[in-house]
Amino acid sequence: MSLAIETLIHELSKLPGIGRKSAERITYFILKREQADNIVLGEQILELKNKILTCKICGNFSETEICPICADETRNHKLICIVEEAKDIALFERLHVHKGVYHVLSGLLSPLTGVGPKELNVDSLVERIKKDKVTEIILAINETTEGEMTALYLKKILEKFDLKITKLLAGIPVGSDLEYIDLMTLTKSFEGRRPF
Amino acid sequence: MSLAIETLIHELSKLPGIGRKSAERITYFILKREQADNIVLGEQILELKNKILTCKICGNFSETEICPICADETRNHKLICIVEEAKDIALFERLHVHKGVYHVLSGLLSPLTGVGPKELNVDSLVERIKKDKVTEIILAINETTEGEMTALYLKKILEKFDLKITKLLAGIPVGSDLEYIDLMTLTKSFEGRRPF
Repeated sequence: MSLAIETLIHELSKLPGIGRKSAERITYFILKREQADNIVLGEQILELKNKILTCKICGNFSETEICPICADETRNHKLICIVEEAKDIALFERLHVHKGVYHVLSGLLSPLTGVGPKELNVDSLVERIKKDKVTEIILAINETTEGEMTALYLKKILEKFDLKITKLLAGIPVGSDLEYIDLMTLTKSFEGRRPF
Repeated sequence: MSLAIETLIHELSKLPGIGRKSAERITYFILKREQADNIVLGEQILELKNKILTCKICGNFSETEICPICADETRNHKLICIVEEAKDIALFERLHVHKGVYHVLSGLLSPLTGVGPKELNVDSLVERIKKDKVTEIILAINETTEGEMTALYLKKILEKFDLKITKLLAGIPVGSDLEYIDLMTLTKSFEGRRPF
């Protein structure tokens, strides 16, 4: 096989969710389609990291120093939703349920992989709480051991401020069959049962 | 969401087998990893079509006017394996079963989508047969209606030459359970049964 083809297959295989077979399909697709399309894709890949900054306030991806969400005066800056990664913001924005702002932790506590409190963006969160007189913090982080540990750690730090701390409800995914739900979720959902 | 991120997600979604979710995962992966890796990938995508030519003899992808297979004097040039697309060559090369050369048809007859005999590289095949005194043509094309139609058409054209025409054996895939084989394959496999 040609070296150029082999190299692209190899590079595509490094992307998440792309195996050897998918990488081959994509490579042959690139060979067949209009070069104009390849130029757009190639240049976007080359330039993405140069274009995208980290918002100085919340840690969101942004093309400006302050991201559009933090710059939006119509949003409630006293209501901060804490997420693990910047990419999680796009997820919640699509739901149109959160009218406040965000704060990116940049990870979760994980003693096994050496992520301690210092690695998380907690200091800047505390500053924001004081400066903006925040009234509610929503913990929107994963229901995993690391997520639970991080939630407890944040709770301890945030308790000294006069604010409400809430957490996303763990429960049965909408549309799911009980039979296929893992036991941990089922237990949490049972413990958290509400009047109907 | 940032326009640069949205654009890359959109461009990645155009690739085969990549849906919106995969495109998002890949985009965030590109944002997080080393820019050096993105430069390699982006440049390969930009340059692939400029680097890859079509072999003047067989139609294979090649970085040279004559592909390495056609240029290889140790291969049997009297034995030509006919494939639908250039990418199929890589598949057979990986098997190490074919010691001859290839010929790319660039499609299959398909009255529905308007692919007629003129769209296929048949004239150049006939030239090769005469010039290289070809003794065997292996039809390695899909077991579909279009494939069968193309095989019959090629047979009619090639019958006037003194050569053997063979076709890949249609049968039960190795390791398969009979129960899960489609009836057409099972029928062909039964009709083509061999002494054991």
